[in-house]
Amino acid sequence: MSAQAPKNDTFLRALVREPTPYTPVWIMRQAGRYLPEYNQTRQQAGSFLDLCKNPHLATEVTLQPLARFPLDAAILFSDILTIPDAMGLGLYFAEGEGPRFHRPLREEWEIRNLDVVDPAAHLGYVLDAVSQIRKALDNEVPLIGFSGSPYTLACYMIEGRGKTEFHEIKRMLYARPDLLHTILDVTAQSVVAYLNAQIEAGAQAVMIFDTWGGSLSEAAFREFSLAHIQRICADLHQTRDGQRVPRIVFTKGGGQWLEALAECGADALAVDWTTDLGAARRRVGDRVALQGNLDPAILLTTPDVVEREASRVLASFGHGNGHVFNLGHGVSQFTPPENVAALIDAVHALSPAYHQ
Amino acid sequence: MSAQAPKNDTFLRALVREPTPYTPVWIMRQAGRYLPEYNQTRQQAGSFLDLCKNPHLATEVTLQPLARFPLDAAILFSDILTIPDAMGLGLYFAEGEGPRFHRPLREEWEIRNLDVVDPAAHLGYVLDAVSQIRKALDNEVPLIGFSGSPYTLACYMIEGRGKTEFHEIKRMLYARPDLLHTILDVTAQSVVAYLNAQIEAGAQAVMIFDTWGGSLSEAAFREFSLAHIQRICADLHQTRDGQRVPRIVFTKGGGQWLEALAECGADALAVDWTTDLGAARRRVGDRVALQGNLDPAILLTTPDVVEREASRVLASFGHGNGHVFNLGHGVSQFTPPENVAALIDAVHALSPAYHQ
Repeated sequence: MSAQAPKNDTFLRALVREPTPYTPVWIMRQAGRYLPEYNQTRQQAGSFLDLCKNPHLATEVTLQPLARFPLDAAILFSDILTIPDAMGLGLYFAEGEGPRFHRPLREEWEIRNLDVVDPAAHLGYVLDAVSQIRKALDNEVPLIGFSGSPYTLACYMIEGRGKTEFHEIKRMLYARPDLLHTILDVTAQSVVAYLNAQIEAGAQAVMIFDTWGGSLSEAAFREFSLAHIQRICADLHQTRDGQRVPRIVFTKGGGQWLEALAECGADALAVDWTTDLGAARRRVGDRVALQGNLDPAILLTTPDVVEREASRVLASFGHGNGHVFNLGHGVSQFTPPENVAALIDAVHALSPAYHQ
Repeated sequence: MSAQAPKNDTFLRALVREPTPYTPVWIMRQAGRYLPEYNQTRQQAGSFLDLCKNPHLATEVTLQPLARFPLDAAILFSDILTIPDAMGLGLYFAEGEGPRFHRPLREEWEIRNLDVVDPAAHLGYVLDAVSQIRKALDNEVPLIGFSGSPYTLACYMIEGRGKTEFHEIKRMLYARPDLLHTILDVTAQSVVAYLNAQIEAGAQAVMIFDTWGGSLSEAAFREFSLAHIQRICADLHQTRDGQRVPRIVFTKGGGQWLEALAECGADALAVDWTTDLGAARRRVGDRVALQGNLDPAILLTTPDVVEREASRVLASFGHGNGHVFNLGHGVSQFTPPENVAALIDAVHALSPAYHQ
């Protein structure tokens, strides 16, 4: 794989707050159910998990949104739960109910038996997808690799499913913090191995999705989520073949803790739409770039509303570098693709004024 | 109804930041499914809604937690959706799925036809419950009345149910803000009439539950939730028979906006557990009291963990007045009542040290 910078490197430059002629944009879950071609490929694959585990089809869906829209980055198509699946918990998807595990962590001996995942042995399908996507991208735009945060993965591993009130993990957090830290330690080491393997396979930036960190108290967030993210950032490859590999950390619902997050070793923080981007910028100063943060619900309206609201996000960040435009969370399956087109066009058309 | 202060007025004094010998405590949803006696009364009533609409049984369940625990306040047993029900939307509860409306707001003419609710005509069962509860309390502890915030009520009125991604209301918010403001104006006027009627019937403090305000961007929160709460606070009775009637505003997920919330006309802000109480206190200064904010999941553990974590919340607020101890959200139905007992005892035993 060539180590030269991609032809369009605005995304990578913005992440390290270098000057760019405009604000780069990609959208979380850009390869997803709002695209008819994605649904077609998924049907062909069988289940969602079959799609994730097939490098050829994962490459196909990763590239689909780039064929439609002039996005400034591609993101690996995969699931955040590949690590616990590789640990043997048995990931499956209940129709209409999201991810589940056949064998959630319940007993102390199950927790003591957890092993750090060897990506080469158990997650080869992801690394193959990364290589194939890089080849297919032909160095046009950079490829983002990703992982769930240890706390977020542990939520699923302990609860056995998403969309819960987190009673099981919180019971463990408050009553048996030692057990939870055991899970988080093994998971954090697995995340490091996984992201470094993605970087070695060609990922040019990495993102850590801390989807459930925002469900914690500040003290618990610092101890059970942030501390493990910090350790991961310290152990990630800084560069590959001389190119810096920036890291983005996204704690959904973490807007109250941006100052602490800015110290975790990330180059950029993704923020959800509840945080005012201008206020966030004043709080983090020049320590990190910011990614975000249009409310995904805006994409359910019309192109003119999308353009108006995109311009408000640009204005809220203001002049200067260090902004990657994105949504504040994944794009909804009910989004008309023409609204995504309007968003990308609006960001590209309106943002140069902020980079003069 | 007598206008004299209740024998235990620590709660009312703490809300206006007057000195108290200890930190008063009550818990959101204290009359609820974690209590076997509540479940018994509810079964007797028929449905949840039948229970809300029966002043005699609503009085009974309001008093149940006070018979068990030395709580410093009672809260009217009712539902936040009584106003839209009184507007004719047809509230019902689907088993295991929460509240629904038979006739959610869909068409512009339905919105234009909305009328401000006359509590005497349509919510007499609530006002009767307030009077009966006051009689039954015999002035031992104060009674809290409450309402949902206009934005939170509008979420249910437009979506037709809880637990949604708020696609319908957000589509309206961004594409037809005029229509949403029409709904919010009528609802805000209804909330004022409703809370003032509760005050006239005997409520000694009122709380506005802005359960879904935290799902908004800051700009949208200010325009569509906070502005209407502000107008409500301006129009609420300040006193009844010479006694001040303090107001508590609770925007769940509103920790980023405490400075703005502190200006809304509330005496106290309730905060969820994601906000550090000490940091919140520094941010709001002496403008408002604070209520909160133990993570309700802590009540799923054991009495010793509950006591340890309660002491952390007390320490986080620190010395001085203006703290009402509570959870950061409603108590879970899976809570062992003995943990609630441990919590109340811990607050009463440990808090005098912070009031010397």
